[in-house]
Amino acid sequence: MSQFQIHQQLLLDCHRLGRFELCHLLLHKNASVSWFILVPEIDGADDLLGLPDNVINLTMAEAKKVARFIKSGLGFQKINFATIGNVVPQLHLHIIGRRQDDCCWPAPVWGNLLEVSNYSAARIGTVKDILIRDYSLKVV
Amino acid sequence: MSQFQIHQQLLLDCHRLGRFELCHLLLHKNASVSWFILVPEIDGADDLLGLPDNVINLTMAEAKKVARFIKSGLGFQKINFATIGNVVPQLHLHIIGRRQDDCCWPAPVWGNLLEVSNYSAARIGTVKDILIRDYSLKVV
Repeated sequence: MSQFQIHQQLLLDCHRLGRFELCHLLLHKNASVSWFILVPEIDGADDLLGLPDNVINLTMAEAKKVARFIKSGLGFQKINFATIGNVVPQLHLHIIGRRQDDCCWPAPVWGNLLEVSNYSAARIGTVKDILIRDYSLKVV
Repeated sequence: MSQFQIHQQLLLDCHRLGRFELCHLLLHKNASVSWFILVPEIDGADDLLGLPDNVINLTMAEAKKVARFIKSGLGFQKINFATIGNVVPQLHLHIIGRRQDDCCWPAPVWGNLLEVSNYSAARIGTVKDILIRDYSLKVV
């Protein structure tokens, strides 16, 4: 049985949506931008570019799914994609839908997201249902 | 003959180091952090996660080379990796060596890099020589 645990700070900041083959998918609680986070289930991983090629490629394939959902499902044209981890060392990837009229455009979201809004439970349920139905997300 | 051109703002901000099979490699002029930028030579590309899998994988393989150099060649343990493009739309990837004692830790560099220092021509030459010798960078 896996001992893998998602970092406590990520669990505090996010709603859990489910998982793909490799990565857990989280939704940042701040709904002022559409901010998803992938956490590969790899014990001790802290560096995407230090992983073996096949693991990077699988991670990127799952990031691509999330980006497709952000574009096709949520109607964004622009994606910000990053793995930083200066505060939370556990490897996690940010995939964020951006719009020129969002609350911190054109700045990156980190440290600049002063506006806070919340998702309703119904909205989270809808997002999860679409990801399960069309993007092979699994319930955890 | 290729009509591809690196975006003017990136050329203003960076030193050109050379190119790999797919991507041009730039070094941000601000030497206060070790900040490299890859620009895939793909006309009109503005979104890493919208590219075909094989192109993403090649881009990531080249990003991995740069990250290896930042760690092994420059002695960093931490990499920040991102593609944002809210200001410069041409697809470009940031690969940045970070240290807990650098000038904007733990903030991301974008918008937070208040300290400015410059590379000497000799230092740029040394970096380029190592990348050519050990990381298959080609001169342009």
